[in-house]
Amino acid sequence: MSPTKTCGISLWRIIDLNFASDNAGPAAPEAMDAIARANTGYAGSYGADAWMESATSKFREVFESPDAAVYLVATGTAANSLSLACLSRPWSAIYCHRHSHVEEDECGGPEFFTGGSKLVLLDGDHAKIDPSNLERAIETTALVGVHNVQMGPLSITNATENGAVYSCGEVSELTSIAARHELPSHMDGARFANAVARLRCSPADLSWKAGIDILSFGGTKNGLIGAEAVVIFDKEKAWEFELRRKRAGHLFSKHRYLSAQMDAYLEDDLWLKLAGRANRAADRLAKALQAIPGVQLEHPVEANMVFASWPRRGHRRAANAGAKYYLWPFSQCFEGDGEEPLSARLVCNWSTEDEEIDRFAELLDGS
Amino acid sequence: MSPTKTCGISLWRIIDLNFASDNAGPAAPEAMDAIARANTGYAGSYGADAWMESATSKFREVFESPDAAVYLVATGTAANSLSLACLSRPWSAIYCHRHSHVEEDECGGPEFFTGGSKLVLLDGDHAKIDPSNLERAIETTALVGVHNVQMGPLSITNATENGAVYSCGEVSELTSIAARHELPSHMDGARFANAVARLRCSPADLSWKAGIDILSFGGTKNGLIGAEAVVIFDKEKAWEFELRRKRAGHLFSKHRYLSAQMDAYLEDDLWLKLAGRANRAADRLAKALQAIPGVQLEHPVEANMVFASWPRRGHRRAANAGAKYYLWPFSQCFEGDGEEPLSARLVCNWSTEDEEIDRFAELLDGS
Amino acid sequence: MSPTKTCGISLWRIIDLNFASDNAGPAAPEAMDAIARANTGYAGSYGADAWMESATSKFREVFESPDAAVYLVATGTAANSLSLACLSRPWSAIYCHRHSHVEEDECGGPEFFTGGSKLVLLDGDHAKIDPSNLERAIETTALVGVHNVQMGPLSITNATENGAVYSCGEVSELTSIAARHELPSHMDGARFANAVARLRCSPADLSWKAGIDILSFGGTKNGLIGAEAVVIFDKEKAWEFELRRKRAGHLFSKHRYLSAQMDAYLEDDLWLKLAGRANRAADRLAKALQAIPGVQLEHPVEANMVFASWPRRGHRRAANAGAKYYLWPFSQCFEGDGEEPLSARLVCNWSTEDEEIDRFAELLDGS
Amino acid sequence: MSPTKTCGISLWRIIDLNFASDNAGPAAPEAMDAIARANTGYAGSYGADAWMESATSKFREVFESPDAAVYLVATGTAANSLSLACLSRPWSAIYCHRHSHVEEDECGGPEFFTGGSKLVLLDGDHAKIDPSNLERAIETTALVGVHNVQMGPLSITNATENGAVYSCGEVSELTSIAARHELPSHMDGARFANAVARLRCSPADLSWKAGIDILSFGGTKNGLIGAEAVVIFDKEKAWEFELRRKRAGHLFSKHRYLSAQMDAYLEDDLWLKLAGRANRAADRLAKALQAIPGVQLEHPVEANMVFASWPRRGHRRAANAGAKYYLWPFSQCFEGDGEEPLSARLVCNWSTEDEEIDRFAELLDGS
Repeated sequence: MSPTKTCGISLWRIIDLNFASDNAGPAAPEAMDAIARANTGYAGSYGADAWMESATSKFREVFESPDAAVYLVATGTAANSLSLACLSRPWSAIYCHRHSHVEEDECGGPEFFTGGSKLVLLDGDHAKIDPSNLERAIETTALVGVHNVQMGPLSITNATENGAVYSCGEVSELTSIAARHELPSHMDGARFANAVARLRCSPADLSWKAGIDILSFGGTKNGLIGAEAVVIFDKEKAWEFELRRKRAGHLFSKHRYLSAQMDAYLEDDLWLKLAGRANRAADRLAKALQAIPGVQLEHPVEANMVFASWPRRGHRRAANAGAKYYLWPFSQCFEGDGEEPLSARLVCNWSTEDEEIDRFAELLDGS
Repeated sequence: MSPTKTCGISLWRIIDLNFASDNAGPAAPEAMDAIARANTGYAGSYGADAWMESATSKFREVFESPDAAVYLVATGTAANSLSLACLSRPWSAIYCHRHSHVEEDECGGPEFFTGGSKLVLLDGDHAKIDPSNLERAIETTALVGVHNVQMGPLSITNATENGAVYSCGEVSELTSIAARHELPSHMDGARFANAVARLRCSPADLSWKAGIDILSFGGTKNGLIGAEAVVIFDKEKAWEFELRRKRAGHLFSKHRYLSAQMDAYLEDDLWLKLAGRANRAADRLAKALQAIPGVQLEHPVEANMVFASWPRRGHRRAANAGAKYYLWPFSQCFEGDGEEPLSARLVCNWSTEDEEIDRFAELLDGS
Repeated sequence: MSPTKTCGISLWRIIDLNFASDNAGPAAPEAMDAIARANTGYAGSYGADAWMESATSKFREVFESPDAAVYLVATGTAANSLSLACLSRPWSAIYCHRHSHVEEDECGGPEFFTGGSKLVLLDGDHAKIDPSNLERAIETTALVGVHNVQMGPLSITNATENGAVYSCGEVSELTSIAARHELPSHMDGARFANAVARLRCSPADLSWKAGIDILSFGGTKNGLIGAEAVVIFDKEKAWEFELRRKRAGHLFSKHRYLSAQMDAYLEDDLWLKLAGRANRAADRLAKALQAIPGVQLEHPVEANMVFASWPRRGHRRAANAGAKYYLWPFSQCFEGDGEEPLSARLVCNWSTEDEEIDRFAELLDGS
Repeated sequence: MSPTKTCGISLWRIIDLNFASDNAGPAAPEAMDAIARANTGYAGSYGADAWMESATSKFREVFESPDAAVYLVATGTAANSLSLACLSRPWSAIYCHRHSHVEEDECGGPEFFTGGSKLVLLDGDHAKIDPSNLERAIETTALVGVHNVQMGPLSITNATENGAVYSCGEVSELTSIAARHELPSHMDGARFANAVARLRCSPADLSWKAGIDILSFGGTKNGLIGAEAVVIFDKEKAWEFELRRKRAGHLFSKHRYLSAQMDAYLEDDLWLKLAGRANRAADRLAKALQAIPGVQLEHPVEANMVFASWPRRGHRRAANAGAKYYLWPFSQCFEGDGEEPLSARLVCNWSTEDEEIDRFAELLDGS
């Protein structure tokens, strides 16, 4: 989020105590090394490079899906919007949670890429879609014939924007509802690694075996410099994806630098190791906060994010010490110094150190 | 609504007892005569005809707005979508009621014409927007900088989809909130005539003097064969409207047949006379229903529609007698014959006769 | 064309000597009568009316196509754009003549409805596509993989914008080229009636039997007040068409007034009789002009239009007498009074009278 | 271009003798070092990083434009399409050369981003727009009022797709024509560095002082791993650009890795040094080829590309030796071994070595 537009604490003065976002952290050394190694002589453009070939093989193995089509883009909005466009027509409803990234943080990207689909907003705790709400929304869409938008894809965010994780069974339950109406399912997996690392499940179980047709598989928030994969289990959509990607300016000419990052990310489970570190940092942070009087956790801590509230003067102390994080929701205003609680989002990343967490907790504990 | 896609009662067997929609009724004789009279020799195409010149003058007089630009199209969806497109950018939020026509009955028309705007859905009784909800929605949009859609136009439906009417003051209150954020306001006036006829106010007071920048002024539901005017009080939008209309295939070559209808509609307050008849029919119907045990009115009857519930067996008798109307909401299913109430929408039009109303009430009164 | 924006002769002073456009003429009495007769009591909305049922039957009979889907809209731009959108994806090339209506006179309608297709412009005499140009254009599109737009539909205008008519064989030759690349074909038949009346062929032979998948079947230029049919021979596109039509605001609620016109138009070959009259008027006009020294015909006269050039002073005399027509191309400027020739388009319609033609020729003959 | 889709020579067997594209070469070490150095601790997301601040300052200095807005994206298609969208409305004509990248190599990107603009294709030698063609095209657009697309931006590619360079005066001549019609001008500067290095002019003279409103300033083809700047001299378009970039998924969260590349690229004129090397390589190649009997240069060699034709058996020898380049145009087919000439595009980049060039020329000289 743009620090200048919010009431968040955005002092950016020192480099630690930073819980603003997982995209504020650095890239993993393995990713940097891979990029450097790829910078040798000539290579095929637009994805016709050896690193992409290798990465594709790894994806197919990791996902136990020998026919999956895999494409790279550089941003999560591109991955999500292109995926949803391939699963929609311009007159489709897209079923998603009210607090999903596609609804709240992409400046209408899905509407742009799909040619005007309508996001139908569903409720549910911790930014997880309640199945009965999905069922009802789909049935309502189907009632009025040509007069309103038509049933379209389901989009699930896992881990959610509130740091919760859908189990494989929970994903299946939702995609089954969609499938009963012959609707496809997309997963926004910007933090898919965090979800898999938490569940210790197989990537296949949490994606195509749970009914997902296209997965946005995030890398940027979890240690790459800017690379996301789109894993298409429904191969018929592959060529359309390629055309949409090119047309939207998301096909990289010097593609090898995307490929190399992603290839390294899948090597030796690096993606899971990085996500595991971020998750453990969040666990440590949650545990530390829970021990502090006046701090309330607001969502289960299942990925790399902690949502909590505490008295305003604790926020003041944190700000004075240079801590960085966002008040969440943004509509809260950071003024005063009293007991009244304010809610915040604290995001850990693969590089978050224990010392940072402990110092941050100490700051609040003075409350 | 397509009768084949709903649980509504859609037997279409006889021509009376028809409360399905104001668009199921005939055109007024004055409109038919005007079309016939216009069918003489050559006339300028694309709006360069004498009837359009006359109609424009009448609009400017009726609306006390000598500079207003006036354009004709044939459908309400075209009028609304083109108007909203002129007041938006593709990344705009459009603030409207959850139960507005632009949201529920245009198959994503606004999204198509605007290039992907996002309709932000507001609540409020009787399909009227609650001002505090508008205020909160606008403020929320403004919080996240570039990351989500931007503040855009307000769209008010008057009379509402539930047959309620905003007073001039209520419209002003909403448009003032928009104006404080420098946002323009649109009115979907598919039933504007019904609202003006009810309020006995001046058309100017209920439109531009109340802060409306562009008005969709309906004719089709109120006695024309298919003609709607778009009245643009903000003249700077006029040329853009012309281009959008042409590009969308809504500029008629033999335009005189639209012009002549609309010219006749404004002659001697025909539009208000027709709407007055429809409103009075709704009043008579509401009064008759209220006298029947077991019937509950669900919204104030301020235009030409009555929303009411009554026991299932009353619906059964009505259906058997050939009555036509929609269950509302559509999600109710018409089965059984017992006491359990079902809700319905009953729409009157300029041609609805007292006898029809009385016979319909008698049918229910047997309950 | 807007008379105020061109160098054309646009005096509009008297009602005859009008060769400006076939859309400047009146509607046929049969169409007017049908509309009047349809204005009785209640009727189903949105196409669920008896006149549409009847018109659909007639279309299926006339086109010898018992499964054809038929839909009505009010303008040619809507018919063409919706049809092309159903045959394209946003990244499609649409192959059409450089001087086709979809390219030159629809303000980018096809681009809007398709979501950004690219019209690939082909040359050929008399606005007829040269088959070798089509072949080459398709092959060129296919060369660069994902990097440019993809092969898409062919659009043929018959009769052409220059008043020429493709024979059934000529249409087949073009659609066969498209079909060899698995591409569908659309026909802009705004003047399809004129073509059929000229060729004395069966409508089936000139459409689906010649490889056309969707036909825009014009009515407005040929005696209706504003109604065009879209005849879809490829039934799989029907539902998509319905959604696109609704979403674009082209589904009429009081649809019976479109239906009734079209039903009358197909009754007893009225459409062919009207077109025959317009064609014969053009023949008479061409013959009269050819007898005048200094007049050169510029295109074969095969439909209802005559393209010819003659000395400037002849134009001056015509203008002074109140004649109306467009200089064609528009880029010519009407100044001076000498021998230098100027080119013009003269359009006849079903109501053009012999006297008009003869008086016009007399005016020029003074040259 | 996708090597699998063309008749080009695409053997990719060895890493040298590669003249396929400037995007097949490696990144400059300075860019790689900058990325590595930026990978330290936390940094602001979405462009709020210190490297972007530094790069922006350098741009303003290099372009002598203290108010210029500068934004980064990763691909040329994104830079061009977003820029054109900011200068257009959906109904705009965009004037460009028939052989421009926006027309031929972006899969309809401009149409997608603008919401359906129409590219009007102009002719001229060496892919440079002939001013008289531009003048005539603009005037033609203006003739028909609302009936066709409206006058819109000019887009100039410098250096052109044929390796020619517009002088400052030539750019001014074209933008002046646009400006007389109040139309803005865009420059596709994917190879702007090559043009400036050739002309030894100031960047300001070749851009805003020559009438350019928005410049796509390429980096990827000239030594970055994937970074392009959009330099907006008309500040009023800046916020719109930001929204369009975000909405299209082109705003990078870990933006520092774009920023750092671009900052290094502008440091000490690195961009000009790299382009100078590529240009000199092309000069050397052209000179060597000209000395060979049977080789014909087809365009002036003013940037880093050589277009030439030579006998088929020379191509055969080159292919056998593992050389990589594209036949140009693609429609030529590479078969046989005789004297008949084939045309080719040979692209040099900053890393092309003299030895490569000399060996390639030797291969052909045997012809």
